[in-house]
Amino acid sequence: MNRRRFLKGSTLLSGLAVMSPTVIFSNDLESISKKNKKAKNIIFLISDGMSTGTLQMANLYSQNILNKNGNWMNLYAENKVSRALMDTASASSAVTDSAAASSSFGGGYRVRNGVLNVGPNGEKYLPIWQKFKNAGKKAGCVTTVTITHATPAGFCVNSDSRNAENEIAEMYAGLGLDVLMGGGDEFFNPDKRSDKKDIYKIYQEKGYKVVKDKTELGNLKKGAKTLGVFSTGALPYSIDRTNIPELQHTPTLAEMSKAAIDQMKDHKDGFVLLIEGGKVDWAAHANDIAALIHDQLAFDEAVKTAIDFAEKDTETLVIITTDHGNANPGLIYGTDATKKFNSIADYKYTNEYILNAIHSNFNLQQIKDWIYQTNKISLSDQEAQHLLDFYSGLEKMEDGLYNYKKLPFKAYSEIQKKHNNIGWISMDHSGDYVELAAFGPGSELLKPFVKNTDMHYLMLEAAMQDKL
Amino acid sequence: MNRRRFLKGSTLLSGLAVMSPTVIFSNDLESISKKNKKAKNIIFLISDGMSTGTLQMANLYSQNILNKNGNWMNLYAENKVSRALMDTASASSAVTDSAAASSSFGGGYRVRNGVLNVGPNGEKYLPIWQKFKNAGKKAGCVTTVTITHATPAGFCVNSDSRNAENEIAEMYAGLGLDVLMGGGDEFFNPDKRSDKKDIYKIYQEKGYKVVKDKTELGNLKKGAKTLGVFSTGALPYSIDRTNIPELQHTPTLAEMSKAAIDQMKDHKDGFVLLIEGGKVDWAAHANDIAALIHDQLAFDEAVKTAIDFAEKDTETLVIITTDHGNANPGLIYGTDATKKFNSIADYKYTNEYILNAIHSNFNLQQIKDWIYQTNKISLSDQEAQHLLDFYSGLEKMEDGLYNYKKLPFKAYSEIQKKHNNIGWISMDHSGDYVELAAFGPGSELLKPFVKNTDMHYLMLEAAMQDKL
Repeated sequence: MNRRRFLKGSTLLSGLAVMSPTVIFSNDLESISKKNKKAKNIIFLISDGMSTGTLQMANLYSQNILNKNGNWMNLYAENKVSRALMDTASASSAVTDSAAASSSFGGGYRVRNGVLNVGPNGEKYLPIWQKFKNAGKKAGCVTTVTITHATPAGFCVNSDSRNAENEIAEMYAGLGLDVLMGGGDEFFNPDKRSDKKDIYKIYQEKGYKVVKDKTELGNLKKGAKTLGVFSTGALPYSIDRTNIPELQHTPTLAEMSKAAIDQMKDHKDGFVLLIEGGKVDWAAHANDIAALIHDQLAFDEAVKTAIDFAEKDTETLVIITTDHGNANPGLIYGTDATKKFNSIADYKYTNEYILNAIHSNFNLQQIKDWIYQTNKISLSDQEAQHLLDFYSGLEKMEDGLYNYKKLPFKAYSEIQKKHNNIGWISMDHSGDYVELAAFGPGSELLKPFVKNTDMHYLMLEAAMQDKL
Repeated sequence: MNRRRFLKGSTLLSGLAVMSPTVIFSNDLESISKKNKKAKNIIFLISDGMSTGTLQMANLYSQNILNKNGNWMNLYAENKVSRALMDTASASSAVTDSAAASSSFGGGYRVRNGVLNVGPNGEKYLPIWQKFKNAGKKAGCVTTVTITHATPAGFCVNSDSRNAENEIAEMYAGLGLDVLMGGGDEFFNPDKRSDKKDIYKIYQEKGYKVVKDKTELGNLKKGAKTLGVFSTGALPYSIDRTNIPELQHTPTLAEMSKAAIDQMKDHKDGFVLLIEGGKVDWAAHANDIAALIHDQLAFDEAVKTAIDFAEKDTETLVIITTDHGNANPGLIYGTDATKKFNSIADYKYTNEYILNAIHSNFNLQQIKDWIYQTNKISLSDQEAQHLLDFYSGLEKMEDGLYNYKKLPFKAYSEIQKKHNNIGWISMDHSGDYVELAAFGPGSELLKPFVKNTDMHYLMLEAAMQDKL
């Protein structure tokens, strides 16, 4: 859908849906219409790879274990947002990857999986954070994966390959982006890059403050351009950060989001900010339910950070969604389904941490003790042997997009399934339609069923209607 | 949520969401408010066991193979409905069965899985179709499974067990319901019931017209109470009806829906009608993608039937949803995902029909020929042998809720998965939040996140606000 066609179909005032008849009938309608006219700021939140079941299970965990409703679902309960179902396909497939998905938001065109805002004949679609920079706004990205990863990159750059993270780290510096926070030291640090280039130095020469841990992030001077790189690769999963002291120097997604908003919020022409819960996707790729739920809840905290700001600010459009489903996890019917689900509260670490600690010289009792200690699951001898077989080479260690250590994620999630009743369709993305919510000025433009590309034009329309 | 609490929170006018600013600003607002005030009729459509992926894949099939958008998604594209996400839990579990789910709509209370509108201490919650009958409306149910099955029963009766279908067949007769259509001859026919009671006779004595095939359905006299029973058990799956001539005497869900509406639409006090796509759930239980997609599309045709009527009528509230997810099917990322998905157009029958035709005396070539003939899938020798092993007793035939013939559904869907890229989390219900849409008067009462029980009170409020 191109911009013209989008605008033609976007004259609906669904934002009124959140007002009571009393409010509508007792107020000056023209003033309501004006009030909803323009978004000075936009915060776009993406829980990467979040299936419907991911959202539901995180909320169920929040209700059953943390005794509170999730922030995203609270927005629904309090009738504060417009909602849509979103078709996430890419130009090359009914099932998108994160690069094509982000390009649809970022460039407004569906592109082939794997590329960033580059069309079939090499067309370069100007990424939306560049459009907003050109319009005088500040722009930033925060993520729990590498800051050069597909989702932030899709809002900022053109590239034939999402894997060109070394180049993307340099490209960002040329764009004058105001806040970049996440992982990815390997793409900035001269000691880790094969070309030995010092990318940090480029940023520093351009006046960026470079911060590398939570303490430095807390001491940031307001308003300065900021590059925060808190880990070699992606940031740790939330559940591991909580339980492993040496990971606690890294900030949470909500902490980065708060800092990013604080850096940009006083700019007279406003700001745009992408917030990505990137490891929700990685947890789904690993069929790791504890990693998934806790990172979705960390994303949900970032939702609260964004909405708290937007409620006070009143000029901020907040969009909350995902780029595609992944693995379609769900709690399955059966005896004690709720009790089994609640047992996930006993899981202390990610499956990555747990499986990575097992070695081929473990005996069965050692594996059983370790699994009981970390997941309160009592393995049978057969299950312990099955796991050990992967380490001794009797069974081939598993592949997978983010399984660089080739751990037996699938085998272990199948063991966990007997205890927690969670199933997965695969270890990869799905073509499901996904949930999208919008809050604040511009949310009235949202139609109930959208293509991912529609969101590009909705942002432009919401923020720049007087300039279009 | 009880009625009082629901009404307290339901003063929102989200129905305005479907009007353009021009309409809102140029009309007398009071008249809009009055126009939306009351639903004379209610049509409640349930695609039983429809996961998010089921909805998406049926629409993708419609787009890619039938070259048209689905009717449900068209309502979204045309901005005609209010939408909600619905929490489907029961009183006993985060994952509901169809009896508890239907009771939540029907009785307004969450009950334990397996029971119909009976509380923990034997309380009997008056089912909503009885409430509407008492208020002078006509009431009916149509379904593709037995008319005595959990979903229609939950709108009509109280029972300690959803399995008491013999008793439910009799109970309906005592309620004066105006239209009952579906399968279930085994529960009405004296030759098939163990107690030899002639239930048809009871209905006939009460003035019901009993019809047993599509032709008789077509010749119905308008306005007469109708019992349509078109099959011993459930009606056939849609794809089998299309391709197997001897099943074509049975009506489709849309045909039954049309007939039911026609029977009741001239009643001065209005009518309420439940339309259930019951075999969507059975297809998910069997991990049968062709059965699933074609029955979801048959449901989508019934959506059109209901909306076509409601658009002309202007006094009908239409609710479109499911009672719970099932098996969370989804199209998985990978090379040629779209092409593999489109190959489902080559499937001519349900897996039930295909697998039921295989016998232990088949040789490998016969199985391979049969699978190629019915699914255009070329089995390897190993796959053919694996299937044959189930029939020769070398592998145990599979169990399953609706797998009375104990066919190897799971084994076969895993073979199909390599060719169509569809995955499933299990062969049972999931706890996922589900999609809900509302059209017409009363749709403005819908909040963006609801519990299943909320829909009970929404229907009462929409239709009987002057009597509450």
